[in-house]
Amino acid sequence: MSDIKKKNNNYTNYNKYNKRDKKSYLNSSKSYNKKQSTGRYSNKKAIKKKSPMRIAFLGGLNEIGKNLTLFECENDILILDCGMAFPDGDMLGVDLVIPDFTYIEQNKERIKGVIITHGHEDHIGGLPYLLSKINVPIFATPLTIGLIENKLKEHSLEHSVSLNPVKSGYHIKLGCFDVELIHVNHSIPDAVGVAIHSPAGTVVHTGDFKIDCTPMSGGMIDLSRFARLGDDGVLALLADSTNAERSGYTPTEQTVAESFDNLFRRAMHSRIIIATFASNISRVQQIINCAVKYSRKVAFSGRSMVNYMEVARELGYLDVPDGIIIDIDDLKNYPPEKIVLATTGSQGEPMSALSRMAYSDHRKVMVGAGDFIIISANPIPGNERTVGNVVDELLKRGCEVVYESMYEVHVSGHACAEELKIIQSLVKPKYFIPVHGEQKHLRKNMEIALSLGMNRKNIFIGDVGSVVELTDDYMKEAEKVQAGKVFVDGLGVGDVGSIVLRDRKHLGQDGLMIIVASLDVYDGHVISGPDIVSRGFVYVRESEDLLEQIKQLALDVLNNCCDRNIHEWGIIKNRIKDEVAKLILQNTGRSPMILPILMEV
Amino acid sequence: MSDIKKKNNNYTNYNKYNKRDKKSYLNSSKSYNKKQSTGRYSNKKAIKKKSPMRIAFLGGLNEIGKNLTLFECENDILILDCGMAFPDGDMLGVDLVIPDFTYIEQNKERIKGVIITHGHEDHIGGLPYLLSKINVPIFATPLTIGLIENKLKEHSLEHSVSLNPVKSGYHIKLGCFDVELIHVNHSIPDAVGVAIHSPAGTVVHTGDFKIDCTPMSGGMIDLSRFARLGDDGVLALLADSTNAERSGYTPTEQTVAESFDNLFRRAMHSRIIIATFASNISRVQQIINCAVKYSRKVAFSGRSMVNYMEVARELGYLDVPDGIIIDIDDLKNYPPEKIVLATTGSQGEPMSALSRMAYSDHRKVMVGAGDFIIISANPIPGNERTVGNVVDELLKRGCEVVYESMYEVHVSGHACAEELKIIQSLVKPKYFIPVHGEQKHLRKNMEIALSLGMNRKNIFIGDVGSVVELTDDYMKEAEKVQAGKVFVDGLGVGDVGSIVLRDRKHLGQDGLMIIVASLDVYDGHVISGPDIVSRGFVYVRESEDLLEQIKQLALDVLNNCCDRNIHEWGIIKNRIKDEVAKLILQNTGRSPMILPILMEV
Repeated sequence: MSDIKKKNNNYTNYNKYNKRDKKSYLNSSKSYNKKQSTGRYSNKKAIKKKSPMRIAFLGGLNEIGKNLTLFECENDILILDCGMAFPDGDMLGVDLVIPDFTYIEQNKERIKGVIITHGHEDHIGGLPYLLSKINVPIFATPLTIGLIENKLKEHSLEHSVSLNPVKSGYHIKLGCFDVELIHVNHSIPDAVGVAIHSPAGTVVHTGDFKIDCTPMSGGMIDLSRFARLGDDGVLALLADSTNAERSGYTPTEQTVAESFDNLFRRAMHSRIIIATFASNISRVQQIINCAVKYSRKVAFSGRSMVNYMEVARELGYLDVPDGIIIDIDDLKNYPPEKIVLATTGSQGEPMSALSRMAYSDHRKVMVGAGDFIIISANPIPGNERTVGNVVDELLKRGCEVVYESMYEVHVSGHACAEELKIIQSLVKPKYFIPVHGEQKHLRKNMEIALSLGMNRKNIFIGDVGSVVELTDDYMKEAEKVQAGKVFVDGLGVGDVGSIVLRDRKHLGQDGLMIIVASLDVYDGHVISGPDIVSRGFVYVRESEDLLEQIKQLALDVLNNCCDRNIHEWGIIKNRIKDEVAKLILQNTGRSPMILPILMEV
Repeated sequence: MSDIKKKNNNYTNYNKYNKRDKKSYLNSSKSYNKKQSTGRYSNKKAIKKKSPMRIAFLGGLNEIGKNLTLFECENDILILDCGMAFPDGDMLGVDLVIPDFTYIEQNKERIKGVIITHGHEDHIGGLPYLLSKINVPIFATPLTIGLIENKLKEHSLEHSVSLNPVKSGYHIKLGCFDVELIHVNHSIPDAVGVAIHSPAGTVVHTGDFKIDCTPMSGGMIDLSRFARLGDDGVLALLADSTNAERSGYTPTEQTVAESFDNLFRRAMHSRIIIATFASNISRVQQIINCAVKYSRKVAFSGRSMVNYMEVARELGYLDVPDGIIIDIDDLKNYPPEKIVLATTGSQGEPMSALSRMAYSDHRKVMVGAGDFIIISANPIPGNERTVGNVVDELLKRGCEVVYESMYEVHVSGHACAEELKIIQSLVKPKYFIPVHGEQKHLRKNMEIALSLGMNRKNIFIGDVGSVVELTDDYMKEAEKVQAGKVFVDGLGVGDVGSIVLRDRKHLGQDGLMIIVASLDVYDGHVISGPDIVSRGFVYVRESEDLLEQIKQLALDVLNNCCDRNIHEWGIIKNRIKDEVAKLILQNTGRSPMILPILMEV
C-alpha cells in the first residue's frame, strides 16, 4: 500500500482536497452534508437556470464496449471512462474499435481530466489512443491506475501522462466539477461509480456495478452513500444496463467459492486448469485460496493473466502465501494432482492459452486424460461457437471439462433487475439515463424505471453522439456531436473505413480474379496477355477450362475496343469487368472481385 | 389425405408390406410380435456370429447438422437421412456444407434406399446433391416427402427420383432390412424414429425427437412401440443428443399456445408480426388459431415460409379456416390490429424477411411504433449476435419486441436429459451410440447412459467417418471410411477447399496489394511499371507516401535482379514479395496478400 501512497504524491494539486480523511468523512456524514450545504452546489435557487449540465455520449450506448461519456458544465469538460470495443464479425481484419475523439480534440482546452471507473478494457482500452492526441490527467483508484500504467507502457506513453490514484470515498476537484468516487462491486476490484457535483446539480453514474453483500474483497458497494446522495437530491442517474434483461439478483462471488471447493475435491487426482478473465482478480484469488487449501501450486498461463497478476500482487490486491505461485516452466517438477493452472482463453479466443492447449499448439502445456478443466466465465454474446469448439476439442482429447451453465463456476459482474431497482430507488434521480448496453438493455432499464413510477419524459435513451442537456427545469436533447467507430488495424488508427471493409468482405466471400494485359501506347493493341491470376475463387487446376474462357473473352473485349478505337481505359476496364463477371456468374454462380489491370508499353 | 394415398401408389413394391393396417397392428401387438418371432430376425441363435451390422457415420457426429448414417448388413446398405449444415464463420463465402458422398458412390450398387426421418434441412438438405450422383428410392412420411419434392423441384430433380410416402407405424422392406417408422414428437410434424430389423438384430434410431404428451397435432410419440421393441430385445440404440446438456424436460408445445394467447391480448391495438422457423408448422398452426380467436387475418412473409405453408396446407398438415389467409399485398386493406404476419428471420439471417423489415429494406412491410413483434425461436448457437442486432434495430424503430427468454414463446424440439433417460430405459439396448451433436452433447448423452447403469464398453462415441461393427457378441470400431465436409458455393460443389478458404481468409483480413510490371523479354529490364493496385488494405488517398515507397522498392528489386542477371521469375517475384511485405509490416503492422505480376513484352 505504500506504493499507492507514493503514487498519490503525483497529483499534489489534488492532494489538498483528498486530505480529508476517509474515515472522518464516513463517520460524519452529517457534518459533510452540512459542509456541502454551505457550498455553492446545494444552493439550488441561486444556480437555477444558470448552468445546465450537458452530457455527451461518445460510446457505450447501443453497443457493448468503448464506454466514453463527457460531462460539460460552464466551460469545463470532464471525461468519464475511455474504453475500446471488440470488432463485430463484419469488421474484417480490425483489431479493436475505439471512439471517435474528434469532438474531444476540438474542445481540448476545456478538458479538465479523465476519470476511469475501473480497469476493464471497455473502460480503459481507448486511453492510449486518446492520450496520443491530447495530454490530460487521469484519475482512478489505485488498481485501475496500475492497470492503466501497464497499458500505457505498451504504447510507450507512461512517462508523459499524469496518473493519479485516488481511493474510493475521496473527491477530485476538476474545474467546476467535484467528482466523488463511490465504491461499487464488480468483476474487478477497486471499481467505482461517481457522483459529479456541479453547478447544475449532482449527477450520479453507477459505472459497471452489482450489489454483492459478501464480495471476496474490498467490501460491499457503498449503498449508504448512494442513499445519502439520493436524500440530498440527484439531478440525473446514469445506470449500467448490461444485465437489465435478467430478473432477480446476480449471485455473490462466494457462490463460486463453494463450486470451486466441490470441484477441487472431485478432481483430487487430476491436474486442474481454470480459465477465466485475467482481470477477474477475485476469481484468481479464489483459485489461489483453493490451491492453498488443497496443497496445490498455482501457475499462470497467458500474457494478460501474467500481467494482471503482477500488477494485482504488487499493489496488494492479491493475497498470495509464499511459495504458492510457480513458474509455468516448473510445472514438470510437480505431480499433476499438485497443480492448478490459471489461464486465459475463457472466450475461446484463437490465440489464447486455453485454445492453444485445446488444439495442441501450446508450447508448454499438453492436455489430455487426467486434466480437469474449468471454464469459469460465460461466453460473451458472439463467442458461443468459439467457446463451444474449444470445449469439444478438450473433450476429444480426453479432458474432463466443466463449462458455463453446468455448475456455478461463474457469476456476472453486472446488476440484474432487482439490483437496478434498488439503486434507482436509493438515488431517486430527477432524470434517468440508461447507459452501457444495446438498445434492448437500455429499454429494459427504462422499463424498470417506469415500473418504479418514473415519468417517461424524464428518461433519456440516447445513441452514440447524442447530447442531453439537463437543468432542474428541463431535460432536452441537444444537437449531436461527431462520434462513431474508429478502427485500429495493426499500427493504423482510422485508416480502415467502410470502403476498405467492403472490399475485404467482397474478397473474403468471393475471392479475386485479376486480368492483366499490356497494351501498345499508340494504338492500344494487345502486346502481352491477357493473363489471369486468381485467389480465393476456385482451385485453378480444376478450372482450367473456365480460366481459358475468361482469358479469351478478355482478349476479345480488348481487340474489339482496339478495333473500334476505344482508348479510354476506364471504359475498357469496365467492359472487361462486366463481360467476365457475367461469364463467371453463369458458370459458377459466384461473383469474385474482378480487377482488370492494363499496362501501357 | 387422398393425395397421400395416391402417392402411396408410387412405391407399389412396398405396398404389399405396408398393407398391414396400422390400426390392426396397433391393436394387436401380441400377434404382431408373434409373427415377428416366427421370422428370421428373432431367431437369434441361428444368426449369431453370422452377419454383423456395420454403422458408418458420414455426418452428424461432432457437429450440428448434415446428418447421414449408413447401416450395412450382409450385402445391403441403407441410408438414414441426408442433411446439410450451415457453414462456420471461417468457411468464407460457402453457402452450405454437405457430406462427402465418396463412400456411398463407391458402394452405390449396394444401396437399397434412403429413409428420411423428418423434413428439416439438416436431414434432407443434402439429398439433391446425393441424388445428382446416384439414383436411389427415398422413403419418408407424407409431409417429409412433400417437402423433399419441393426441394428437388428447385434442382429440377423431381421427375427422376422415386419418392415414396410411408406413414409412421408402417414397415419398409429394403434388402435384408425391415425398416419400421415410429412416430415421434419434434418441431416439425410427421417426424419418425426408426427400428431397423436386420439379420444382425434390431437397431433403433430415435431421429430428432422429444416427448410431448400434448402436441399440437399428430399425437404423442409412440412410446409404447419403443417399449415393446425394448422388451423384444434391441441390439443398439442411436439417440439424439442435441439437448443432452439440459436437465429436466422440454416443455410441451402447448405452453406456447398460452403465451401467444396472452400476447395477442396484450397487443390488442397493434399489428402482430411473429417470426419463427418456416418448418415449424405446429407453431404456425398456433398463430393461425390465435388469429381466428382474435379475428385477425394471417399473411406469410419470406420465401421458405410461403413454400412450407403451401406444402403443409396441400397435404393437410395445416388447419386453416376459409378466409383467414391473405396475400401480403393485401395487408393495406386491413387495419393493423386485424393482421398477423408470420415471417421468416427468427435467426437474424441477413436476407430474411424480418431482417429486411428491421433495416427498412422490405419491399412490402414497413415497421415502426404500433408493431408488436414476437420472435418465436431461440438463436441457434452462433446466431446470438445477428438476432440481437435485429432486435435492437426493431426497438430503435419503436416496435415492441418480445424475444427469446422473455416469455415462453418458444420450446425446443429436442429431448432433454429426463426424456433421454426414458427412451434409453424403454429401449434397453445392448449398445448405446449417442448421435446428433457436438462432442459435449455426445458425452452428456453418454453420461446419461452411464447413470442408468450401462457399461462404458457398450457405448460408442464416434466421429464423422467412423464405422462401428455390432453383433450380439461384440461391438468394435472398424476402419474409418472417407467422410468430411464438402462445400457448396454458388453452383460449385466441392471446388472450394482449404487453399481457396485460406486465401479468402487472408484477403478478407488484410486485403490485397498487387504489384504489376512489364519486363523486356530479352534482358528483363523494366519497360513499364511497376504499378500498384490495392484493395481492402488502406485508403489509397491517405497513403500515397507509402504506396510510392512500395513502388520504388519494387522497382529497386527489379532493377537489382536485372543487373545481377536474375531472370527466373519465381525468384524475382519472391524477392518483391518479401521486401514489400517487410516494408508494409514495419509501416502499418499489417500483412496484406502481396501479388507480384510480371508480364513479358
